[in-house]
Amino acid sequence: MNNIKIGIIGGTGYTGVELLRLLAQHPAAEVLCITSRSERGRAVSDLYPSLRGHYDDLAYSEPDGGHFAACDVVFAATPNGIAMNYAKQLQANEVKLIDFSADFRISDAALWSKWYGMEHACPELLVQAVYGLPEVNRKQIRKANLVANPGCYPTAVQLGFAPLLQDGLVDVQSLIADCKSGVSGAGRGAAVANLFSEINESVRAYNAMGHRHQPEIEQGLSHIANEPVQMTFVPHLMPMVRGIHATLYANLKSNDVDLQALYEAHYASEPFVDVLPAGSHPDTRSVRGTNICRIAVHHLVQSQQALVLSVEDNLVKGAAGQAIQNMNIMFGLEEAMGLDLPALLP
Amino acid sequence: MNNIKIGIIGGTGYTGVELLRLLAQHPAAEVLCITSRSERGRAVSDLYPSLRGHYDDLAYSEPDGGHFAACDVVFAATPNGIAMNYAKQLQANEVKLIDFSADFRISDAALWSKWYGMEHACPELLVQAVYGLPEVNRKQIRKANLVANPGCYPTAVQLGFAPLLQDGLVDVQSLIADCKSGVSGAGRGAAVANLFSEINESVRAYNAMGHRHQPEIEQGLSHIANEPVQMTFVPHLMPMVRGIHATLYANLKSNDVDLQALYEAHYASEPFVDVLPAGSHPDTRSVRGTNICRIAVHHLVQSQQALVLSVEDNLVKGAAGQAIQNMNIMFGLEEAMGLDLPALLP
Amino acid sequence: MNNIKIGIIGGTGYTGVELLRLLAQHPAAEVLCITSRSERGRAVSDLYPSLRGHYDDLAYSEPDGGHFAACDVVFAATPNGIAMNYAKQLQANEVKLIDFSADFRISDAALWSKWYGMEHACPELLVQAVYGLPEVNRKQIRKANLVANPGCYPTAVQLGFAPLLQDGLVDVQSLIADCKSGVSGAGRGAAVANLFSEINESVRAYNAMGHRHQPEIEQGLSHIANEPVQMTFVPHLMPMVRGIHATLYANLKSNDVDLQALYEAHYASEPFVDVLPAGSHPDTRSVRGTNICRIAVHHLVQSQQALVLSVEDNLVKGAAGQAIQNMNIMFGLEEAMGLDLPALLP
Amino acid sequence: MNNIKIGIIGGTGYTGVELLRLLAQHPAAEVLCITSRSERGRAVSDLYPSLRGHYDDLAYSEPDGGHFAACDVVFAATPNGIAMNYAKQLQANEVKLIDFSADFRISDAALWSKWYGMEHACPELLVQAVYGLPEVNRKQIRKANLVANPGCYPTAVQLGFAPLLQDGLVDVQSLIADCKSGVSGAGRGAAVANLFSEINESVRAYNAMGHRHQPEIEQGLSHIANEPVQMTFVPHLMPMVRGIHATLYANLKSNDVDLQALYEAHYASEPFVDVLPAGSHPDTRSVRGTNICRIAVHHLVQSQQALVLSVEDNLVKGAAGQAIQNMNIMFGLEEAMGLDLPALLP
Repeated sequence: MNNIKIGIIGGTGYTGVELLRLLAQHPAAEVLCITSRSERGRAVSDLYPSLRGHYDDLAYSEPDGGHFAACDVVFAATPNGIAMNYAKQLQANEVKLIDFSADFRISDAALWSKWYGMEHACPELLVQAVYGLPEVNRKQIRKANLVANPGCYPTAVQLGFAPLLQDGLVDVQSLIADCKSGVSGAGRGAAVANLFSEINESVRAYNAMGHRHQPEIEQGLSHIANEPVQMTFVPHLMPMVRGIHATLYANLKSNDVDLQALYEAHYASEPFVDVLPAGSHPDTRSVRGTNICRIAVHHLVQSQQALVLSVEDNLVKGAAGQAIQNMNIMFGLEEAMGLDLPALLP
Repeated sequence: MNNIKIGIIGGTGYTGVELLRLLAQHPAAEVLCITSRSERGRAVSDLYPSLRGHYDDLAYSEPDGGHFAACDVVFAATPNGIAMNYAKQLQANEVKLIDFSADFRISDAALWSKWYGMEHACPELLVQAVYGLPEVNRKQIRKANLVANPGCYPTAVQLGFAPLLQDGLVDVQSLIADCKSGVSGAGRGAAVANLFSEINESVRAYNAMGHRHQPEIEQGLSHIANEPVQMTFVPHLMPMVRGIHATLYANLKSNDVDLQALYEAHYASEPFVDVLPAGSHPDTRSVRGTNICRIAVHHLVQSQQALVLSVEDNLVKGAAGQAIQNMNIMFGLEEAMGLDLPALLP
Repeated sequence: MNNIKIGIIGGTGYTGVELLRLLAQHPAAEVLCITSRSERGRAVSDLYPSLRGHYDDLAYSEPDGGHFAACDVVFAATPNGIAMNYAKQLQANEVKLIDFSADFRISDAALWSKWYGMEHACPELLVQAVYGLPEVNRKQIRKANLVANPGCYPTAVQLGFAPLLQDGLVDVQSLIADCKSGVSGAGRGAAVANLFSEINESVRAYNAMGHRHQPEIEQGLSHIANEPVQMTFVPHLMPMVRGIHATLYANLKSNDVDLQALYEAHYASEPFVDVLPAGSHPDTRSVRGTNICRIAVHHLVQSQQALVLSVEDNLVKGAAGQAIQNMNIMFGLEEAMGLDLPALLP
Repeated sequence: MNNIKIGIIGGTGYTGVELLRLLAQHPAAEVLCITSRSERGRAVSDLYPSLRGHYDDLAYSEPDGGHFAACDVVFAATPNGIAMNYAKQLQANEVKLIDFSADFRISDAALWSKWYGMEHACPELLVQAVYGLPEVNRKQIRKANLVANPGCYPTAVQLGFAPLLQDGLVDVQSLIADCKSGVSGAGRGAAVANLFSEINESVRAYNAMGHRHQPEIEQGLSHIANEPVQMTFVPHLMPMVRGIHATLYANLKSNDVDLQALYEAHYASEPFVDVLPAGSHPDTRSVRGTNICRIAVHHLVQSQQALVLSVEDNLVKGAAGQAIQNMNIMFGLEEAMGLDLPALLP
């Protein structure tokens, strides 16, 4: 089999370097080019010495769509509002696109514009784009040319709620997602708020009155539930680099349900969702560096609630790893190829 | 005025050293004696070099009730099940007791035994004991001889929910407290689970199916609401030393309420509860080392919910600081004496 | 006695907020005004909620020398190259200046220009300026109008080496200072290198071939030794916010010396240098939030070396605390006034 | 080729779980059995959920030499003083032994007893044992049946000093190793000193007057230099889990030497030593999870010193990774097999 030829748009940030780390251990991937305006001409292993010995001939080049014509697939690891400008040309060249940003995640262009504060460059592609959550949309991903890779919070939250919603077991107006995230989710931009001296030894909530991932999650959950779902979503920033811990609450319609059996059955054949034994509490480090979403479900009988604890590595299952999982599906490879390593612990 | 003469039972742990730190800057306090079985004979400033220059003549002595007869008040900074064995003798000697442990927090002895796994040594004192949350029980504390200092989670949670419950604004069956705590709350005992290498760069929930602070909180909230309150409580461990962040959810009976005004009015005259401006997100570091509980309230109109963010330093307002606040009240001192310093930030 | 009236230039950074924290607990200090171009008009307690309740009427004002005429003393908590522009006008108004920056630390203007890359605005004041290390220059500080507050590394290193050099016990060409610093020393500027995700779980050296504090330290050590001293200086960045640990090596001229007695005698009457018992290893947290420099000395007989371990809080003894100590000396107050609190531990 | 059949003695600690993580991605390794007295009968993936999906049939068994007869090689990831009791029986069964502990690192039994405080169980094997630092002893390792895997500090320090010593460029009495280590090096034992609340936001030296790794390092350096080497060694504990940063100082005999060229040539063909370009400062995270030792060398002309910055992951190149590298060499596999993944960053 030939290697898949890969282009990367904007690979200087944390999802970019994580993508490079994971592709270095993928047996069927070859990175042809990587672009960055700010770092053009610089060797990738000079910016990231952790990659020395793995990409010694790769340097950042000036972004310019022409580069990508020889690629089979392009990953866009860019801020919101960039990838949508590349999508049409890539389609014209028959190059697949897996977009890490939010550009193609919301199918309603007006809703997208409201949350992201700009006009969409190609709203006609929104319906074509497939939302890249394999556990929900595997079939569509297989045939997709344009995949919107889910956000980090949306992945942990949707995988946590899905079994309850698919089987109609909970009040769809009662959902609460109290999420705790590492700081790498905020990216590598120079911002006072993300300085070590601002973050260490402190915890706080943010965007309690509205976070951009909320409409994405509600769209996904409504799709799974097949009815409109409303969710309260409160993200918190943790003094750690990697990891998301989603603590999910939902009111059960009945206490007469075996949640443990439900979750185990729902995810029995999934390579990247691991349901822990009853009574467990997953810690984020147990998935560090891996593409696993690890879930525990608790039945709070007294309050007739389901409590779901869902953890992931925001840079892997919440970004670069899930993107590779999508690539594997799109190109007919084994889904777990290059992604089956254990977590780095401690 | 004469100094208050103070005894400390078991001051080798984190609440003990924090009590010593705070008392060193209290203008009317004098530590007469401190006991510890394991460290008897050792200078306090040898175990804690951070106290060098402040308690140079103080050494740990063998615990034995006789020591405390000359004290005005004794603080018990001991594990659960110890202080209850000292209570009667202290009463006989007319020495007040402020207990950091859970021994006198639950007024129902059977419920206490169920959660703490032992018989209570003096159940007859449970009704005498005053629950030391000044914002709720200030009058009773003034006359108390035996104060049960509240737990760390219970302080942040009760102060956060109190205005809603006192005014009957929420469904008392809908409360959720998603709490995030620093590791110092787990104490200074040698435990693998609290090693740096187990905690750093990771987040997890624990005791999701039942934590000892739950009956304490429900008892307190029911008292405030004047009806039985049920709460879902999920504690999480953070990779930080100090701080609790309580994220509180409650379903409002009506959206026709001004939550910001409610909270500001409720706490207008409290020296140690600080209600932030509308739209705020308190961070735990903003109260590090202080006796402040800092609160922000958000009205989630769409889901008709109140969202309360409540932060404290678990070792201060959640333990040693609140104990000193109680002492100040019990001895007729200015309530904020020795406790009015700003937070250590960054 | 009247309060000392204080102005602060540029108080938005970490040394600025630390200065405000410490002045809040100083019994004879009153902050009249604080300036900041970027934050003018904003309440100090809005930028730093940790200060709520302490400076509620204080807001940042536009920098403009006129403000300070009513002050007794001005602290400049600014980047290098700013304070030197205020010095002459303050002198004309008979307002004392304590400068946190490097503007007046190097007495040789040419050497200063070489390391700081600009012309000095008032080289004639360099000789007037007193280097504000009280343990060395207390007498001159008492009469000074312009004090150059020492850098953070220079304080820990000079206090560590001083007893050896003053008594001529070591080869002055053999000194090595291997220093470990918390990140707050790098300030609150938005820089990728100081992001949490860049710093946590990592250690590295920086500026191994030359750091601006080296000429400052060598000037100070040469002054103490009364002969030219040369030192190898390698600073390292630690994944912590506060604290400096200086590990100091020097070749002894003879093994026939009692280093422990030497250090204890040298610092016997110093309020802010604490020599630990023989065999100790100070940790930086033991001085967190305090003005103490804590020192242990080890005699490595086999290699005929002195090993000195010197720790401080870079924002206190390394900046704002030492500045207040200098203020106390300059105004004839008790030297430890407002600075005698124990460390925050854990 | 057949898989190498592996036994592990004592695999519950951090070097044990790291060994399992690395072996899971080794294409020619098969773990037959793993022993632990305290955890016998427990599934490995129950103790370490991070390994779920990788060792689902592996459980800890009672230690008892008989288990290992079917193995090709046994790794001892045990405290000092255990492996030496297994060595003879393994030899009798023709099973190779790679020992992570110090039992076979010091060839002088009396010196070993002095530092480790016990009698050696099989001093006659000390001369047979090969010190497993491949960059120095590759030929001997190839034929060895008993390999003493080097300590974490010794690996970083010896690799850092080796080029200078081998070429006789420095004064062998002038060496200083100022080392900074993550806490995982102290193991997973329950110890107050290693609690999160003791370690975070603090730095300190320890064992300044003598650390067990000193004789090991001096023995190794003397072997490389072919003359007795004396070194000052001061280890420090960092608030991080993984990583060692060794800062090495040595007095050059002459300034007329090109250190950069020397280091590049010395390590040109080494798969796991990476010499950075001139002027670099390696950070420990750049090798996190990898078997790389990354080195920068600086020539301090003024003081005629070499300054070497050497970083490694203490659990990989400092323990489990180097052990696998040794296994690869001993069994004639490609030396980098299973070890060529990039670092986890951020």
